[in-house]
Amino acid sequence: MQIKTLGEFGLIKRLTRQLENDSSVIKGPGDDCAVVKFNRHYYQLLTCDMIVEGVDFKPHDKPSLVGRKALAVSLSDIAACAGIPKYAVVALGLPKHTRVETVDEICRGMFRLAREFKVNIVGGDISRSLRLTIDVSMTGLVEKKYLVLRNGASVGDFIFVSGALGGSISGKHLTFIPRVKEARFLAENFKINSMIDISDGLAQDLGHILEQSCAGAVIYADLIPRVHASVSLEDALYSGEDFELLFTMPRKEAIKLMANKNTPPYRMGGCPASCGVFHAIGHITDKKSGLRLIDRNCRERVIIPRGYKHF
Amino acid sequence: MQIKTLGEFGLIKRLTRQLENDSSVIKGPGDDCAVVKFNRHYYQLLTCDMIVEGVDFKPHDKPSLVGRKALAVSLSDIAACAGIPKYAVVALGLPKHTRVETVDEICRGMFRLAREFKVNIVGGDISRSLRLTIDVSMTGLVEKKYLVLRNGASVGDFIFVSGALGGSISGKHLTFIPRVKEARFLAENFKINSMIDISDGLAQDLGHILEQSCAGAVIYADLIPRVHASVSLEDALYSGEDFELLFTMPRKEAIKLMANKNTPPYRMGGCPASCGVFHAIGHITDKKSGLRLIDRNCRERVIIPRGYKHF
Repeated sequence: MQIKTLGEFGLIKRLTRQLENDSSVIKGPGDDCAVVKFNRHYYQLLTCDMIVEGVDFKPHDKPSLVGRKALAVSLSDIAACAGIPKYAVVALGLPKHTRVETVDEICRGMFRLAREFKVNIVGGDISRSLRLTIDVSMTGLVEKKYLVLRNGASVGDFIFVSGALGGSISGKHLTFIPRVKEARFLAENFKINSMIDISDGLAQDLGHILEQSCAGAVIYADLIPRVHASVSLEDALYSGEDFELLFTMPRKEAIKLMANKNTPPYRMGGCPASCGVFHAIGHITDKKSGLRLIDRNCRERVIIPRGYKHF
Repeated sequence: MQIKTLGEFGLIKRLTRQLENDSSVIKGPGDDCAVVKFNRHYYQLLTCDMIVEGVDFKPHDKPSLVGRKALAVSLSDIAACAGIPKYAVVALGLPKHTRVETVDEICRGMFRLAREFKVNIVGGDISRSLRLTIDVSMTGLVEKKYLVLRNGASVGDFIFVSGALGGSISGKHLTFIPRVKEARFLAENFKINSMIDISDGLAQDLGHILEQSCAGAVIYADLIPRVHASVSLEDALYSGEDFELLFTMPRKEAIKLMANKNTPPYRMGGCPASCGVFHAIGHITDKKSGLRLIDRNCRERVIIPRGYKHF
């Protein structure tokens, strides 16, 4: 059987079914981070992300931005669980004729972002490979009371995104800001029921929340914030690599979030469509309604959670 | 500048010079594992190792053994710090037309070893890549009092290896047993001054201990245990992937280790050359004597720490 028959997520499900973990594992594969016991107040988070030349970046992309991205995608995973990033190890697969100056630049971009987010890069491995490959593994900590996973969305929850979507391929995927601060702000001030980072596209990643929460959703085309007016609805729904947070919270909390104008940089208006960096885009329904989109003419259609395909 | 001008270790030194870590990092890059604060009694260990088709294994190697090896090399790093392996995350880079059955087999070999060593595989990432690539990142714990690094070798220390060397390329590199149990036995019962796992060859890896300990060493050709009589001295000294422990301990401890016959499977004779699984091969001298080999005719020569080269 070919991998594409199962798809990335089908394959992951198939493989992880064979795993047997002990009771120290709070959450194994299937969320943005793994969650394991740490101490009385904290869980430890673990995540890894591999980026490959020709797949996740182009051969001519600036090496410093490639290094930056490699770290940023893991930071985004820690953010999605409302965690504090702590330590990273970096495996570099380098083609034989890579220039030292290129590796310098990769590390410069990566180390600068690490300093910015107070992550310690504590180790790594260098191998020869056919295409430039960078795998960053990261640990983080999260207070038990703040941990958010994909599976907690509840009927009536408001659905939010943390910024504008679409067009990431034109450059944002190399320069996006991992939403660590935003996630911490949310966890510390509100009750969040579920959260994920949008790496495979809004529809696909909302699909993950719905599947794991046994829920459905309605989203409003007009409320989905787009990077430019030129970004199509399709692109905002299905293109990957936005790395914005997608989260749900109870109505009461959502109203509090939208009314909160006093916490820069989280200037929020009273309107769901433009509440500062957070944008309400819809709400959670019961599972049998599926995922539905309402367009500006109030027409409703069911949409399929799909997005970027690796295979 | 080409990478091969600097070599793998030169490159690592150059890159890690730019790193600034905080005081929670006990040991950053440059040892088998990174070591960070954990709690009152334990440190946390972190390590990652990337294996790539065509470099670390051949396209026709059994997938289950390839998956096994990917996990085993990280286990060996945890062992080298006398740690207890805990959690792993796995990044898989898969060529587009990889068959699902192949991935099943990779995971079967990996998961079986994980169960054997009580490691929880808690997460991962699947990407498309040109060549099969597996990066395993692992955390472990070690009691503060048991932590062993490369930098503690002291003049007069006896040097030991945990098993026979050479000929790994003919298959052992896919089936070796990570010396986790052996390292724990040593740490719990003896004072070890320095330890490393032999991944790049005895001469190279002893070189790492000597460099970081500011020491020299004398080793005896006749005492180096070899897998087969057919393995040349050159091969035992310079071929990589043995994944045996190389460690040093004070003379008094060494005599205790060599006299200890009562702890199966650590049956040790009184003779340095054949003390069960542990073999004394020489001793630590001062730095200015360098690394010297004494052959069976009592001729002495200086040898250069070199071994497997990635670039």
